[in-house]
Amino acid sequence: MKETKINVSVYIATSLDGFIARPDGDVSWLHEVEPIEGGDDAGFGEFFGSVDVLVMGRGTFEKVLEFDWPYGAMPVIVLSRSLTEVPKKLRDRVRIEAPTPQVLLEKLSQEGFKRLYLDGGKVIQSFLREGLVDDMTLTTIPVLIGEGLPLFGRIDKDIKLRLLECRSWNNGFVQSKYQVLN
Amino acid sequence: MKETKINVSVYIATSLDGFIARPDGDVSWLHEVEPIEGGDDAGFGEFFGSVDVLVMGRGTFEKVLEFDWPYGAMPVIVLSRSLTEVPKKLRDRVRIEAPTPQVLLEKLSQEGFKRLYLDGGKVIQSFLREGLVDDMTLTTIPVLIGEGLPLFGRIDKDIKLRLLECRSWNNGFVQSKYQVLN
Repeated sequence: MKETKINVSVYIATSLDGFIARPDGDVSWLHEVEPIEGGDDAGFGEFFGSVDVLVMGRGTFEKVLEFDWPYGAMPVIVLSRSLTEVPKKLRDRVRIEAPTPQVLLEKLSQEGFKRLYLDGGKVIQSFLREGLVDDMTLTTIPVLIGEGLPLFGRIDKDIKLRLLECRSWNNGFVQSKYQVLN
Repeated sequence: MKETKINVSVYIATSLDGFIARPDGDVSWLHEVEPIEGGDDAGFGEFFGSVDVLVMGRGTFEKVLEFDWPYGAMPVIVLSRSLTEVPKKLRDRVRIEAPTPQVLLEKLSQEGFKRLYLDGGKVIQSFLREGLVDDMTLTTIPVLIGEGLPLFGRIDKDIKLRLLECRSWNNGFVQSKYQVLN
C-alpha cells in the first residue's frame, strides 16, 4: 500500500500490440507515423510541465543519451545497480540511485517532490507490481510491430483501472488516461 | 495480397495488457467489469448484424461450447485439423474446415458470403500475418491481468493501421476501430 504523498505518473507510447520499443530498443518506428496536425504534442508538454522529477531505468537513460538531452533542467533519477557515472554535462541534474521503489518514493517525497514522471518498461512494471503507480497516460500508435520490449509484464494479481480521459487524433493516435486502482 | 471480395472483420475485447483470456482460456475477468450503463452492447449487435459468417479456431469453439450457443443461426466455420465432430444440435450451422486462410476466403467468397467475423487469437494472428484482415474493432477493458492468451503475435513485417473510429464509455471501455493497411 502506498503511503508517500508523491504522485507517480506514467506517460508513454506503445504500438497497438503493446511494445514501447523493438527488441534492440529501437524506437524509430514511433517517428515513422505521421505526426499530429498543427504541431500538437499529444499533451506531452502539459504533462511534462506538471511533474517535478523524472525516474527512469538504465536502458531508457542509455537510449536517451543517443539523442540531444530532451529534459532540460528537470531532475532525473536513473535507477541502476550497475551504472556508476553520469556524463559530465548532466551531473547537475542526473543522479544514479538503486533503492527499492518504495524507499525511493519516501526519499523523493522527503526532498519535497510532488509528481514523478516514471519512464521505461521495466521500471514501470516494477512500480506497478508494488502498487505504486497513480496514473498512466498511454498513447497507442496505429502500428503492429510484432515483437519488442513490452510496456506491461507479469503481476501477482489483477490491477483494475479507472478511465479518466480518452481522445484520438486524425493521425490515428489514441490516448487513454487511467487512474490505477491500487 | 488479398484478392477475394469477402471482407474480414475482427471484433474482440482485450485487457489493457493485450490478453483475450487467461492462460487457461478463462474469460470471466471480462464479466467482472461493470457493464456499460443502459444495456449498451458496445456496438456488438450492430457488428454481428453486419456479418454473414463467423470463423473461429478450435480453442474459441470449445470455450463457447461451455456456454449457451450465442450465435443463433449464423453459419460458423471452425478451423481445426484435429476436431472431427460437431455437437448434434449445431450440425445445421457449424462446420469444421482446415484449409489455409487464403483458400478458405476464396471458398467462402464463392459461396456468396460478404463479411466474415474472425474470432480467436491464433486465427486472427494467422490471418493478420497473411495480410487478410480488413478491419479490427478492439475494445480495451480497464484491467491488467499480467499473463494469458495474447491477441497479437509475431509478424514478418510491421502492419500499419488507419484509425476509423474511437469511443469510450463511463465504465472505462475504450473501443478503437482500425482499417488494416495491408
